[in-house]
Amino acid sequence: MALLVSKFGGSSVASIEKIKHIATRVKAMKKDGNDIVVVVSAMGDTTDELIALARATGSEKCYREMDMLLATGEQQSASLLAMTLNNMDCKAISLTGWQAGIQSDSTYSKAKISGMANQRIFNEINQGNVVVIAGFQGISPEGDITTLGRGGSDTTAVALAASLNAEKCMIFTDVDGVFTADPRIVADAKKLSKVSYEEMLEMASLGAGIMHSRAAECAMFYNVKVEVGNSFNNSPGTLITEVANMEKHRVVSGIAHDKNCARIAIFDVPDKPGIAMVLFKALAKVGINVDMVIQSAMRDNRNDIAFTIEQDDLEKAVPVMEKLVKEICASGMSYVDDVAKVSIVGAGMQSNPGVAADMFEALAEEDINIHMISTSEIKVSCLIDLCEIEKAVKVLHKKFALDKLV
Amino acid sequence: MALLVSKFGGSSVASIEKIKHIATRVKAMKKDGNDIVVVVSAMGDTTDELIALARATGSEKCYREMDMLLATGEQQSASLLAMTLNNMDCKAISLTGWQAGIQSDSTYSKAKISGMANQRIFNEINQGNVVVIAGFQGISPEGDITTLGRGGSDTTAVALAASLNAEKCMIFTDVDGVFTADPRIVADAKKLSKVSYEEMLEMASLGAGIMHSRAAECAMFYNVKVEVGNSFNNSPGTLITEVANMEKHRVVSGIAHDKNCARIAIFDVPDKPGIAMVLFKALAKVGINVDMVIQSAMRDNRNDIAFTIEQDDLEKAVPVMEKLVKEICASGMSYVDDVAKVSIVGAGMQSNPGVAADMFEALAEEDINIHMISTSEIKVSCLIDLCEIEKAVKVLHKKFALDKLV
Repeated sequence: MALLVSKFGGSSVASIEKIKHIATRVKAMKKDGNDIVVVVSAMGDTTDELIALARATGSEKCYREMDMLLATGEQQSASLLAMTLNNMDCKAISLTGWQAGIQSDSTYSKAKISGMANQRIFNEINQGNVVVIAGFQGISPEGDITTLGRGGSDTTAVALAASLNAEKCMIFTDVDGVFTADPRIVADAKKLSKVSYEEMLEMASLGAGIMHSRAAECAMFYNVKVEVGNSFNNSPGTLITEVANMEKHRVVSGIAHDKNCARIAIFDVPDKPGIAMVLFKALAKVGINVDMVIQSAMRDNRNDIAFTIEQDDLEKAVPVMEKLVKEICASGMSYVDDVAKVSIVGAGMQSNPGVAADMFEALAEEDINIHMISTSEIKVSCLIDLCEIEKAVKVLHKKFALDKLV
Repeated sequence: MALLVSKFGGSSVASIEKIKHIATRVKAMKKDGNDIVVVVSAMGDTTDELIALARATGSEKCYREMDMLLATGEQQSASLLAMTLNNMDCKAISLTGWQAGIQSDSTYSKAKISGMANQRIFNEINQGNVVVIAGFQGISPEGDITTLGRGGSDTTAVALAASLNAEKCMIFTDVDGVFTADPRIVADAKKLSKVSYEEMLEMASLGAGIMHSRAAECAMFYNVKVEVGNSFNNSPGTLITEVANMEKHRVVSGIAHDKNCARIAIFDVPDKPGIAMVLFKALAKVGINVDMVIQSAMRDNRNDIAFTIEQDDLEKAVPVMEKLVKEICASGMSYVDDVAKVSIVGAGMQSNPGVAADMFEALAEEDINIHMISTSEIKVSCLIDLCEIEKAVKVLHKKFALDKLV
């Protein structure tokens, strides 16, 4: 008898019909003799509808109240799934984040889980209940409801699996698993049966969108075995686990791409120590992450700095940068949002020099211009024009023979 | 500086526009130098929509989960009102039932308030916040979310006013106050400036629908001064207070009517001690309240018993009664749902004999047949045919000169 944690996203609980479908699945897992904890997101568009209401009040930046509002979405889907299970003679009980003992800090709208007080969950399991937990939420030290920000439900599930010492955390979504590239772009993209934590982490950060990087990080840290699969069919998903289990011959495991990019360039920045720090601190202060960075060669003690951010953050970043350009006496700035990032990811790259060169070659053969490059031990990313992103994904998928993967 | 508790019903918070309207009103009360606690119901149709979802799961009788689901409605409206107030520079914070310390028993779907732990409310007031509390909900000793059943939000407001020692509890609704009769039926019905707790209690039970009888009972018990008024205008409402303040000359204060009636008759019930008890215990067991009862004169040691219940309960009552008719060897039963109850209510009736006779006379003059009668110290109710209810209300309003009230 194993303890399994399953997480179902918003599209898996978008209607009562879909809830009934996953309830059947949960009941089958329970009937196999497992103890089951289920984490759910809010139904389909619920969160968007609540955000629209909040916007209408003119006060959607009132984060403490926003969390109070948004947390109701997951509470609703959790109770509806518990009802459905009970109606199928599968004993179930729903718990909110605070009832499940999910403790967080007080950073409303993007709180971090700080602790787990799981006694209630164990009590309910011991009474034979499937425990359905509202994802994406916790309780602050002040006793206020918090939400966990992007990837919050995935992170809830992985953190619960870690603290409950579950055998596996199953993340159910609307795709079959992790693919070598987005199947909507590359028709012969292959599903990977296993990826390493590190690869999943890179793929998640690079826009693969299957599982949030925060959850992948948590899984890696606590060594939680995660399986990503489709809630609407029973085909085996992708297992995310330690690199020790990986097929060593695979150099590149997948092609990731991200259209949510914008590039800002600052011209003629004085070459003084700490200038880059000033720029990026100002962005961090308004909650903007900088991704790729290049600093051009020095000329007359001045140089140009370019960097990328999420396109969604551009509106917030531009006024901050315009103000700074004056303060640091740069000559000006520019920004574009018609750029995108394509990346190759693979744990095998570490011991295979020349992979980056292969990537640049493949892009050059198709006349795709590279604006920026960034690398890590297991990935290489290139910023290119947005209009060429699909072509780039296809050519790289072919170049690294991912369509031949078995 | 006074502490005021205000309650706004579902129609008052049905849209963001309406929420803005009441926020303006709350801000004005706060600006007058008062400490403000606001209790809100769920937005307009939210509760009905959630019930429809629950029905679709086939498990709407799973009361613990229903409460988990339904409580989200008030949590949403509370947070939206708090956001709106903050956006108007009126500091506000929303609290759920459990955050506000509203303790209840574990009778899911119709829990009773068992205690108040108001420290958090006082803390927030001391920090200058308007405190917006989700009505209709509490927390059970097991730490589960409960809802308080019919009239739950009114009761939350009155109970808070009592425990916070508020100067006044203001129940805002979509009518101007308590009228001498339903203004939709009697065009010249007058708004009463004051009524006694007892009168309000009778009117509420008799279907006046302004304020729930449970809340009126709570107000009477704890001596909470309540004002019922219109959330959409500033005309003075009706003050509900001790009878000592009442105008003594008023014999009848109002005409109430209730169309939600059904009558069940059981024929030839054996005249044995405890038979009536058996009937009414069986109904109580399925949660049905019996209202008016008559037992006809005995004939051959057998007699007929007739009683009224809420029309909504008829479907549930009939099979229970059919089973019992056999068990107690009665000869049969019948039921009708085209009946209604008209009542006269007035604290002055206690010292004015002959008021009931005046009522019967007025109905007789209009050829309105009376099926059943029940009386208390301050009211007389008659069951009549549903099709005659409006005529009856009008003629009684005139008979007791309520249109001449100043």
